[in-house]
Amino acid sequence: MSDSRILSRQDLDFLLHDWLRVGDLTDRAPFADHDRDTIDAVLDLAEQIATERFEPHNRAADLAEPHQDADGKVVVVDGVAEAIAAFAEAGFVGASVPAEHGGTGLPFTVARAALAWFQAANIGTASYPFLTTAAANLLLTHGTAEQVDTWVPPMLDGRVSGTMCLSEPQAGSSLADITTRAEPQPDGSYRVVGTKMWISGGEHELTPNILHLVLAKIPGGPAGVKGISLFAVPRLLADGTPNDVALAGLNHKMGYRGTVNTLLNFGERGGAVGHLVGAEHGGLAAMFHMMNEARVGVGMGAAALGVTGYLHSLEYARTRTQGRAVGGRDVSSPMIPIAEHPDVKRMLLAQKSYAEASMALGLYCSRLVDEKDTHPDDSARARAALLLDVLTPIAKSWPSQWCVTANDLAIQILGGSGYTRDFPVEQFYRDNRLNPIHEGTHGIQAIDLLGRKAVMRGGAGLELLTTTVRDTIARADAHAEEAAALEAALVRVEKTTATLHATGDPDVTLANASVYLEAVGHVVAAWIWLEQLLALGDRDDAFAVGKRAASRYFFRFELPRTGPQFDLLDSLDTTTLDWPAV
Amino acid sequence: MSDSRILSRQDLDFLLHDWLRVGDLTDRAPFADHDRDTIDAVLDLAEQIATERFEPHNRAADLAEPHQDADGKVVVVDGVAEAIAAFAEAGFVGASVPAEHGGTGLPFTVARAALAWFQAANIGTASYPFLTTAAANLLLTHGTAEQVDTWVPPMLDGRVSGTMCLSEPQAGSSLADITTRAEPQPDGSYRVVGTKMWISGGEHELTPNILHLVLAKIPGGPAGVKGISLFAVPRLLADGTPNDVALAGLNHKMGYRGTVNTLLNFGERGGAVGHLVGAEHGGLAAMFHMMNEARVGVGMGAAALGVTGYLHSLEYARTRTQGRAVGGRDVSSPMIPIAEHPDVKRMLLAQKSYAEASMALGLYCSRLVDEKDTHPDDSARARAALLLDVLTPIAKSWPSQWCVTANDLAIQILGGSGYTRDFPVEQFYRDNRLNPIHEGTHGIQAIDLLGRKAVMRGGAGLELLTTTVRDTIARADAHAEEAAALEAALVRVEKTTATLHATGDPDVTLANASVYLEAVGHVVAAWIWLEQLLALGDRDDAFAVGKRAASRYFFRFELPRTGPQFDLLDSLDTTTLDWPAV
Repeated sequence: MSDSRILSRQDLDFLLHDWLRVGDLTDRAPFADHDRDTIDAVLDLAEQIATERFEPHNRAADLAEPHQDADGKVVVVDGVAEAIAAFAEAGFVGASVPAEHGGTGLPFTVARAALAWFQAANIGTASYPFLTTAAANLLLTHGTAEQVDTWVPPMLDGRVSGTMCLSEPQAGSSLADITTRAEPQPDGSYRVVGTKMWISGGEHELTPNILHLVLAKIPGGPAGVKGISLFAVPRLLADGTPNDVALAGLNHKMGYRGTVNTLLNFGERGGAVGHLVGAEHGGLAAMFHMMNEARVGVGMGAAALGVTGYLHSLEYARTRTQGRAVGGRDVSSPMIPIAEHPDVKRMLLAQKSYAEASMALGLYCSRLVDEKDTHPDDSARARAALLLDVLTPIAKSWPSQWCVTANDLAIQILGGSGYTRDFPVEQFYRDNRLNPIHEGTHGIQAIDLLGRKAVMRGGAGLELLTTTVRDTIARADAHAEEAAALEAALVRVEKTTATLHATGDPDVTLANASVYLEAVGHVVAAWIWLEQLLALGDRDDAFAVGKRAASRYFFRFELPRTGPQFDLLDSLDTTTLDWPAV
Repeated sequence: MSDSRILSRQDLDFLLHDWLRVGDLTDRAPFADHDRDTIDAVLDLAEQIATERFEPHNRAADLAEPHQDADGKVVVVDGVAEAIAAFAEAGFVGASVPAEHGGTGLPFTVARAALAWFQAANIGTASYPFLTTAAANLLLTHGTAEQVDTWVPPMLDGRVSGTMCLSEPQAGSSLADITTRAEPQPDGSYRVVGTKMWISGGEHELTPNILHLVLAKIPGGPAGVKGISLFAVPRLLADGTPNDVALAGLNHKMGYRGTVNTLLNFGERGGAVGHLVGAEHGGLAAMFHMMNEARVGVGMGAAALGVTGYLHSLEYARTRTQGRAVGGRDVSSPMIPIAEHPDVKRMLLAQKSYAEASMALGLYCSRLVDEKDTHPDDSARARAALLLDVLTPIAKSWPSQWCVTANDLAIQILGGSGYTRDFPVEQFYRDNRLNPIHEGTHGIQAIDLLGRKAVMRGGAGLELLTTTVRDTIARADAHAEEAAALEAALVRVEKTTATLHATGDPDVTLANASVYLEAVGHVVAAWIWLEQLLALGDRDDAFAVGKRAASRYFFRFELPRTGPQFDLLDSLDTTTLDWPAV
């Protein structure tokens, strides 16, 4: 067993096999080429490439962020291109892409677990091929056969990278207000004109070509989001000449610096050549297919950074000596490892409880992707899709919030050292801070959960979630304290959801949507901990002792936080509505 | 009235005059030279110098942190030396130093308020003269007349800066374990040998000389903290030759980069010339005189960064338009300022509730310094000293924790922009993250509060705190909701403190000291909000409306967080003790 500080393979094996039983998936036709041995080999390979190719330049990419040279070319540190090439070479861009399209055809759950190694080792470099995977998956779902044939193979083998071009300077969260337009041409193509903001991987020479997936409006279409279409706009045209896409500037970020982030002008010379992907005016739905995957991916990235911060601070705490036990004032006695101080243990357990629950939640949602895509039973597929839908805002936001907190605690454990760039935890903290912002901010996820997911289909999604949690509770006789606390919390979720939606005033319903998101998120995390307790069975090695301690921490220190949150929500408090703020 | 985004002068005037009535202090002899006009002039001057000399290079100092040139000299960005000179020239180094020692002789409360402008504008540059002030105050209290005459005048006029040299590589929080030694010499001086870590301002040429205040052990003295003495060790000796103090390295931090932070070797060439300050083996007590001031100063720095982050995000939220009101789906209507979205208002009110309470708490503690030093009545002085003692760990830790959270929310309001270095909020967040670490970590403050301050003198300190809070409650008939909630919380503080100290097992008592610190901190902050409500009286301008909204936010969203914390503490939970973490 490796003792990597990047991730815990022992935990991944526990989650994948003892808990999520991904081996069972290999009975299904799409995964028939795989078995436990191939799954193990993929995880071994991910760890190896992440360790050898991604982690070594993580700090260098942070210190020397991408910049433009005298010719305007985007320059990144050494090692990035090689890492991306090794990643593609090993088949990770198409890890979950079916074999008939040239992919590795792994269960999505296994692919996600493997990819977490790269996110933990170097989230900045990992972003490039992750965006490519997302673009390839989008084309496979919505593209024409010709688009798939043209773009997917070079994406999978590392010759083309992908981007997502949604935001504009005047339209960030408010996609209804984008103004980029796409004019139809006689040859069936379009000319795209507009400015796109916050485009990760928008310009570089890490791959021979880049395919931008761009949201734009076809003139004459419906107003707002109903008039948004999706276009594939390559950096270089088929003949190798540059398309009309200009780099207008690089953004300089607090973290995540390894990922070049750009402002792009499309159509400065008249119009960038673009090709419609999917239906006219169907762009938002197509992009949301990608976005929902991306949201769980953001949560997994946050989880990966949370876990690696935990592992780094755990190692530090076990080796750094300082002070003595309470009452041990004999200064001639040796100092003890700080891991023996209860307050340091509190900070370790808090990290573990946030980060491992986040990782588990991300993998659980990934398992739902496999269920919705490959379960032989129609209704089981529909149930998985529904549960995934309701869990997505939580799987994005909860890890993004609490794994930044975890990284904050990792810094605190390292003290002054943690605040320096001599140790990686401060970078994890800065990198992770992006996650509550991109792919839909925390507040957007809150409105999505309370305003849409909790009430869609007459509340069927939320009911499926509570039913699923109660199935766990029903199996938890050996964990009476946890089962009772979780049942009580579930009742509060139900009551509060009903109370909020009974107001008849959407302003009041949604006024404290973020508090609702956070409370429900903690309840879901508690459920994930109870699931892990059950999966441990009567195992009693150090791994199981650690899991039980983290679970106990979560149920005693964390879940009770939700009490005042539900109280506040039930009171229909309007403090935030009443203050003019002007 | 200025509309600075650095700090709110309107709020400072409210706190100083309407609430803390600092004008009354000018009736006392030490402050007889001052009146409302001179106080206003000092605050005007602080704002002006902070705005003109400190704020302009705040980002530059972050981007180009101090480094050594080819000759090993420490180089800082342009503007720092000029800012420090302007600060000294205006009398701020000795702002609260009595006139007979060359100071400005201001009430400490007024000095603190003035100094907050510099912390908010540029905490990295402000640190240099702040350390000098602390060193000067320490010499004034513990130094000989000769030491005072030699060092204090050049400190006040900007020719000498001060440092505090406590930590060593093997001894951070555990000062008992320092190994730096000081050998007595026949001429009464000492030769200091050892390595000191994390020394802010430890080497630079911003001032002609530096005076290091160094903790070291005189051989043959008692073990542990009882054998620590304090020494003044100048960078340059009286004849202008270098003392035996060598720069061994610079630390590269996540934030607070403008302040050079050093590893110093004393005595590489045999021994640095040092002079004993105060009594042999009395060094820790002397340093703690300085440290307690520094701890309230850390809290004020955190508060200042919290307030400036709030003001920056408020301005952004009022001007950035995005989206429409709930239910406003007419995309042909103009977008609204994000300050009108309830979730953004929530993030603004949270920041305001943390940052303004932090600022108020720091000024309240500063007012206690004035009371303990200048109140004509002995018992009033003693009471002020006792209350200050019990509040100090909270005044240090609470702002350090919650104003980082405030800065986190400022980033979130600015979204992607907040995550870039084009806006200052990400720097505030990184700078502020030092505050829970230095001058005694969060966990150290927790043990100080629960293990010492809450039980010292038979609990007299805590009783004085609760009595003081109840005096406020007794005046709060017009605020029944807040008064009742605060009284209930106070009862919990009392009960929980008794429960924890009744265990007879110090491990159990202190196992969750940080939770105790955080819960009591929130109760104290609620009290500070009720105090502000009372000071508003029937004022009903926009300022008062904002204060009441922040107070309401705090009582409804924040104070209830303490319920589960007290529950946990009352349960004498041993989760953190039971997990081996190894």
